[in-house]
Amino acid sequence: MMNKLVAEFIGTFWLVLGGCGSAVLAAGVADVGIGWLGVAFAFGLTVLTMAYTVGHISGGHFNPAVTLGLVLGGRHEGKELLPYWVAQVLGGIVAALVLYIIASGQAGFEGVGGFASNGYGEASPQGYGLMAALVTEIVMTAFFLIIILGVTSKGASVGFAPLAIGLGLTLIHLISIPVTNTSVNPARSTGVALFADGPALAQLWLFWVAPLIGAVIGAVIWKIMSPDD
Amino acid sequence: MMNKLVAEFIGTFWLVLGGCGSAVLAAGVADVGIGWLGVAFAFGLTVLTMAYTVGHISGGHFNPAVTLGLVLGGRHEGKELLPYWVAQVLGGIVAALVLYIIASGQAGFEGVGGFASNGYGEASPQGYGLMAALVTEIVMTAFFLIIILGVTSKGASVGFAPLAIGLGLTLIHLISIPVTNTSVNPARSTGVALFADGPALAQLWLFWVAPLIGAVIGAVIWKIMSPDD
Amino acid sequence: MMNKLVAEFIGTFWLVLGGCGSAVLAAGVADVGIGWLGVAFAFGLTVLTMAYTVGHISGGHFNPAVTLGLVLGGRHEGKELLPYWVAQVLGGIVAALVLYIIASGQAGFEGVGGFASNGYGEASPQGYGLMAALVTEIVMTAFFLIIILGVTSKGASVGFAPLAIGLGLTLIHLISIPVTNTSVNPARSTGVALFADGPALAQLWLFWVAPLIGAVIGAVIWKIMSPDD
Amino acid sequence: MMNKLVAEFIGTFWLVLGGCGSAVLAAGVADVGIGWLGVAFAFGLTVLTMAYTVGHISGGHFNPAVTLGLVLGGRHEGKELLPYWVAQVLGGIVAALVLYIIASGQAGFEGVGGFASNGYGEASPQGYGLMAALVTEIVMTAFFLIIILGVTSKGASVGFAPLAIGLGLTLIHLISIPVTNTSVNPARSTGVALFADGPALAQLWLFWVAPLIGAVIGAVIWKIMSPDD
Repeated sequence: MMNKLVAEFIGTFWLVLGGCGSAVLAAGVADVGIGWLGVAFAFGLTVLTMAYTVGHISGGHFNPAVTLGLVLGGRHEGKELLPYWVAQVLGGIVAALVLYIIASGQAGFEGVGGFASNGYGEASPQGYGLMAALVTEIVMTAFFLIIILGVTSKGASVGFAPLAIGLGLTLIHLISIPVTNTSVNPARSTGVALFADGPALAQLWLFWVAPLIGAVIGAVIWKIMSPDD
Repeated sequence: MMNKLVAEFIGTFWLVLGGCGSAVLAAGVADVGIGWLGVAFAFGLTVLTMAYTVGHISGGHFNPAVTLGLVLGGRHEGKELLPYWVAQVLGGIVAALVLYIIASGQAGFEGVGGFASNGYGEASPQGYGLMAALVTEIVMTAFFLIIILGVTSKGASVGFAPLAIGLGLTLIHLISIPVTNTSVNPARSTGVALFADGPALAQLWLFWVAPLIGAVIGAVIWKIMSPDD
Repeated sequence: MMNKLVAEFIGTFWLVLGGCGSAVLAAGVADVGIGWLGVAFAFGLTVLTMAYTVGHISGGHFNPAVTLGLVLGGRHEGKELLPYWVAQVLGGIVAALVLYIIASGQAGFEGVGGFASNGYGEASPQGYGLMAALVTEIVMTAFFLIIILGVTSKGASVGFAPLAIGLGLTLIHLISIPVTNTSVNPARSTGVALFADGPALAQLWLFWVAPLIGAVIGAVIWKIMSPDD
Repeated sequence: MMNKLVAEFIGTFWLVLGGCGSAVLAAGVADVGIGWLGVAFAFGLTVLTMAYTVGHISGGHFNPAVTLGLVLGGRHEGKELLPYWVAQVLGGIVAALVLYIIASGQAGFEGVGGFASNGYGEASPQGYGLMAALVTEIVMTAFFLIIILGVTSKGASVGFAPLAIGLGLTLIHLISIPVTNTSVNPARSTGVALFADGPALAQLWLFWVAPLIGAVIGAVIWKIMSPDD
């Protein structure tokens, strides 16, 4: 059990340091910056790499909504739900701290600003409101769980699950960064919200509620498509 | 059968929400927008992820032209052609509706504009005419079918088909977004045409006719190269 | 034998239509254009997709330098060298013709310009001279052959060769588009040179000589590293 | 043994020529340049391609820190550490020489400038100080080793290791190019430092010390997560 929790801590640390780190450090630099396309690849590649690395240890969730969906889908033991959530949230928080240490080492540093946090309304990257944010986070998380449940099901090709799941998270970011800065992961949202300027902490509830609802919906849709699985 | 149709509905929903969604929401944003390169990856990754997810349920077509080509190539039962087409078109339409709900939630929303619809002439992203659009959609769909038939043939490496097909769709978009905004998929074109401003509905015929012709040609070319398959 | 030649024709057609097509149609468009990064992915994905599609038919060369290197490395029969070269060059030429038809269908079309042709000196995208072009094309083709010979050798992982070879060609373009617009493939250079404005035809010799020399060097280096293969 | 050293020389040559070459030649070109996103893919694809190519010969390290971490993790013989380091550093230096020859062949060439070297303070691409550079290089190398040890462990999917390791290096660059221009590899830093203008040679110590420390930490974290491996 301890090995699993360390793996979830390390994996979620990497997801937040890599995904949010690329956004904070490299996305908006003039001319050569990586933009949202680079951030989308960074988030996806954190999951791709860590799912191949520790997937055989902990399952490779790195996300409280994923753990919930896998428990509901009968793929993971329910008694591990809360310990996994704690390890994931701690991983996200420590990653945000390390990212803060790096970011604050830049000459002329004046504060982290949004710090890659998630938000709606005034805090949405392109000004999308609460309803659009809710719909987006629910639908995106639902499809993330459908993908995860499908590519790890008995009928799927062995070995390709981390590739499909990681690139699925890239895809989700390509769609939804403009709306909410893309969460689909309460641990990712919590980690950076503790350090961000602005309304990130006040809006954090949505990035727990919507991904968890989405995970439930995703697990239900998967069962409809694949009842014997 | 019902499981298959739900899978085709879900997969085509994801293709249109992800591909057209990334185009509508994230492509043209200044400085950090994902551009056509990001849209090309988004379309490809919708198919990559869903083909790994439900490929073992429905075959993972998500596209009326693909279903036609697979029936002609002897890979899929002809009696499922029409039910698949209905599920795919419905998936595309419902995805366009969800995308409309999200897009209209932006502050200052004034209409969807082209809404990632396909077009030629004045509606072509870079002003390509009817003939260029026809040639492009026919050739691109033909090669899409050649790829699909080849990577799922007996001689091909097991497990890599969704990767090659998805990245093949990315490639097709890298070439042809400037010409027609890339269809190769009548369900994708139909879904957004119902919501788009401009001539999308009036031009929709081409994005049924050309992909279906291309699918026939692709199936024929494959049989020439691999007659015993 | 005929099946093989059709496969090489189709594969090289796709390489030139996809790679050069993305460059001509989509690379330089303001704001949303795919840039050299998109062109690099397009070239690589043409080979990735077609190697998975027809690799089990013809070997999936699509490139006279590759066929030479594989013959020298003892992987392909020497008597097929010339027929393969003819099929590849024809595929490249027909693809350039189709690309011309599409490109000339743009409103306000005034000529194809460089038409994604390869060049040095005044015809180099960033003004690199003859020596830099020679070194670049020789070294890049040598490594392309080392990769191809290595990933298809007995010790390599089954099924991953098209992925590694395709992404290897993407990498080669990421490095060398500024120098020569990247050839490493005489068929690709010949196809578009016949239609391009400027010195492409007069400089075409280099994009036969250098890739063929590089292929020889690559085959030799591979034999040094892996003498029993 | 000689085969292994040639493979490490060739692989590290390719890593430096491809990664630093893309940065020097193609990253900063106006409008169509590949930017840091392209450089990140280039570095990753050098390792992806070469690990598939010569991984079964030498293990595919191409990096003194990786060799150290694998020796500490019990995956590689300690007596090969120094010969590997020599082959890797020589590969990096010769690659930098070839890159110099190409780069200096551009019309109007006036010197290589930073030549894709690594640095901190005034030499950091975005002005990050010594502490930020140390933390970044240590953490990034630690995770690089965790990924490498995990994806090549007994529980991992066979064949996917080069993919995950290569894309892991892409991810590391997406995060940390702004801070140090990303090393995590003393051989890569040494090669270009010998040719670069500016403080690269004087700062080279950090890009030996930090990656080696990071490799030790990564090996320790892996053992904590997977003690029986």
